[in-house]
Amino acid sequence: MALTADDRLGDAASALLGDRRLIIATNRGPVTFTTMADGSLRPRRGSGGLVTALGQVGRHVPLTWIAAAMSDGDRRAAADPKLLREAGGGGDDVRLRFATAERSVYEQAYNVIANPFLWFLQHQMWNLPEKPVIDASTMRAWERGYVAMNDAFAKAVLGQARGDRTPRIMLHDYHLYLAADPIRRARPKAIISHFTHIPWPPSSIWLTIAPVIREAIATGMLANDVVGFQTPRYAHNFLRMVESFVPKATVDYDAGTVRHRRRTTHVRTYPISIDVDATRRVAGSRAALRRADQLMGATRERVLVRVDRLEPSKNILRGFLAFEALLQRHARLRGRITFLAFLVPSRTGLREYGDYGRQVQNAVDRINARYGAADWRPVQLFYENDYAQALAGLSIADVVLVNPLVDGMNLVAKEAVVVSGRDAVLVLSETAGAFDQMADGVLAVAPADVAGTAEALAAALRMEPDERQRRIARLRRGVEREDITWWLRRQLEDLAEIAG
Amino acid sequence: MALTADDRLGDAASALLGDRRLIIATNRGPVTFTTMADGSLRPRRGSGGLVTALGQVGRHVPLTWIAAAMSDGDRRAAADPKLLREAGGGGDDVRLRFATAERSVYEQAYNVIANPFLWFLQHQMWNLPEKPVIDASTMRAWERGYVAMNDAFAKAVLGQARGDRTPRIMLHDYHLYLAADPIRRARPKAIISHFTHIPWPPSSIWLTIAPVIREAIATGMLANDVVGFQTPRYAHNFLRMVESFVPKATVDYDAGTVRHRRRTTHVRTYPISIDVDATRRVAGSRAALRRADQLMGATRERVLVRVDRLEPSKNILRGFLAFEALLQRHARLRGRITFLAFLVPSRTGLREYGDYGRQVQNAVDRINARYGAADWRPVQLFYENDYAQALAGLSIADVVLVNPLVDGMNLVAKEAVVVSGRDAVLVLSETAGAFDQMADGVLAVAPADVAGTAEALAAALRMEPDERQRRIARLRRGVEREDITWWLRRQLEDLAEIAG
Repeated sequence: MALTADDRLGDAASALLGDRRLIIATNRGPVTFTTMADGSLRPRRGSGGLVTALGQVGRHVPLTWIAAAMSDGDRRAAADPKLLREAGGGGDDVRLRFATAERSVYEQAYNVIANPFLWFLQHQMWNLPEKPVIDASTMRAWERGYVAMNDAFAKAVLGQARGDRTPRIMLHDYHLYLAADPIRRARPKAIISHFTHIPWPPSSIWLTIAPVIREAIATGMLANDVVGFQTPRYAHNFLRMVESFVPKATVDYDAGTVRHRRRTTHVRTYPISIDVDATRRVAGSRAALRRADQLMGATRERVLVRVDRLEPSKNILRGFLAFEALLQRHARLRGRITFLAFLVPSRTGLREYGDYGRQVQNAVDRINARYGAADWRPVQLFYENDYAQALAGLSIADVVLVNPLVDGMNLVAKEAVVVSGRDAVLVLSETAGAFDQMADGVLAVAPADVAGTAEALAAALRMEPDERQRRIARLRRGVEREDITWWLRRQLEDLAEIAG
Repeated sequence: MALTADDRLGDAASALLGDRRLIIATNRGPVTFTTMADGSLRPRRGSGGLVTALGQVGRHVPLTWIAAAMSDGDRRAAADPKLLREAGGGGDDVRLRFATAERSVYEQAYNVIANPFLWFLQHQMWNLPEKPVIDASTMRAWERGYVAMNDAFAKAVLGQARGDRTPRIMLHDYHLYLAADPIRRARPKAIISHFTHIPWPPSSIWLTIAPVIREAIATGMLANDVVGFQTPRYAHNFLRMVESFVPKATVDYDAGTVRHRRRTTHVRTYPISIDVDATRRVAGSRAALRRADQLMGATRERVLVRVDRLEPSKNILRGFLAFEALLQRHARLRGRITFLAFLVPSRTGLREYGDYGRQVQNAVDRINARYGAADWRPVQLFYENDYAQALAGLSIADVVLVNPLVDGMNLVAKEAVVVSGRDAVLVLSETAGAFDQMADGVLAVAPADVAGTAEALAAALRMEPDERQRRIARLRRGVEREDITWWLRRQLEDLAEIAG
């Protein structure tokens, strides 16, 4: 009898863990706590791609999940075993723990370094002649915030690894570039991996920032046994960075390894994916189906859909410019197509995001004013966080536009092919991590190429049904084969091999 | 008897050329013509690093120099052999010719594609969430402007190569990425090189723009026998680009070659430099010496100097922020240091440059208001194009700040060490091409690292005389050895070897 994907994941987990628990550390955990008016703590389930993806892990392996205490509620809950057990689901499958530090430490790590600095840096979102300005306060936030918060994570991880000389630890993303090193010093034989969910930019970008920061990141990452990236290009950029900034390291591009301080770090590619079954369940829920019906009633013959956080790197503005160019060049489409844009509020406290949102709204208003009619609104904007509604939108799309400037992976592209009920054509940026896996089934666009994006939309709308069907079938097989279980299993297998 | 540098250059030229002339093509030539009120044409000598550098070439080899007809005067002069002979110096050493096209063709090539698009792209100066927007008009300017202008250059080159099946041709810079291909088609055995004076960005940048453009550039460059870059990193980025966008090409990173259409293109590094003697002559001129005296009289004990076009990629703003941080942290310097900033007007028609200039002026005003006194102005700004004055400034500097965001080479860094009369310490961006040759004698800074730049300035001002002397002597030997003659000779030798 063939092994199921779950069986194979279970085997990989057993091989790696034996009777251990897998320790995962992420900035944002599955639950945060808010202090209520009466002083009690109320748990709230988190959302976001990373939490959703890792949430599946606990189904397959016994898990200790360490997240940053982000709020005062979290800091209080950190010391309350009962609350933590309830938040972890009541059983012992997922043990939730917090890495705690003073509020100012976390704020500086998160609101000065991780989000405005590393996120912008790695998505190349700066107007470089003006930003960033790395001044004394940035360097203080790095040292007292980011470095200190990574130390707090290391301490929390070590607290969960007590009595185990070889704990198995998976660190995640751009908040935790420095956590492996203090763990390694306390547990030289630990098995540690780090996975970066966002893009890894080329060295010319790292060259612009303070040497102290980039060298700490490059060196700190080498305390891991495995560092994982979404695509071969990001992995290559990391190897180049190490070669540039860690002179004592030996980089082997063909093997994808770095030798440093008598240790080997394996640089690997693990494109993340979705939980196909869970996605289908939500898309097939009564709420989503009803919403799909309503949307269908409110749209014209042809439906173009995008789903994104309202975020400059998603390139939403140029998407609307391309739609505008489409209506301008192809007059026969006027009155016959609806663009449904599901935009999820994001980082509303950052000025850049607010400015960008206003530009997006202005573009939509202009298009609707210029081309709309009493009975036809070309663009319908939904600005809310409603996952079922977004999947409903994707399910009725003829064309899905995913045109980020740059994107670690982009899970909307994968959700779209899984839930489509109309053999949607996917128009996808070459700069999305997902493009590496999906190139042979999508229409490719370059993100700044508004004229080319308009042409790709036109080609998608013209595509013959059998060609659409062939393409989405191919894409769907790919996503089904390389799903979130596959992503996790390959990492566990690699770590098990290294653990020997 | 040892060969002089001039002898060796002459030998290399003979080996390559035999009794031929070297054909050089650049956008901007040594002379442009303005139509006067009476209808006559007045020639005006050009300036700028490229013209200055190539101007030396004619001293060593018989040269036909083809430049774009940029003005109506140029277009008229193009047909007037007498004017052209006079503009070339009267003799036959430098033959000046124009590549002509309709004004609209040149305007689109230069003012839509080359300067606002390719320059910004290759210097990574965009706020990518908003710019560039490649729309139908951009694509028209590409096709009818840039492509057409490159064809016009090819035609002009072929006109000068009549009767020669193997002409020797050197193309220059970002205006002429496509000229080699039409030349190659007409003269399959021509020896053609292209040298890119500006940075070559990583593929993640090229990925954002229209495939038609990046593929035309990558493929078009492979019609050259040699493509030269300022640094190994830029050469590597080019090889990566070819690998990404020209699937039929075979890239050999170790050999630095590309095989494509049964031809080999050699990818080489030729860091450009200055004419050391000519630079010294200007710095030693009576005008410069007098100006140096005056500047010395108007400055305090310590003198910090920068010389740059007023251009966002030069990172002038962060330079002033670093100076401000220096005054703030090191109170003992207040009243004792003067920052002389020689800024040359540049591209004043582009909005980005105007905005940037205003920000720079505001920063200077703020610093002078905050720290200045009745008898001490911390920053003195010179906004004019006065080369002798700039060299005079460099000659009296204790510290020279060269902190570009990114820079193909940066010749100011090389001029500074040649003309210094005070053993100036050079504070240099790692992102300047010049850093590759000068790393062991400068204080390195990362361009966004304002705090680090302030510290580097403080370290430079504290440096002991003997250490300053050692460093500048080392840098000076390097610049004297690897000067403009060396830059040219190595290219001629490589081409001679290929010509067999």
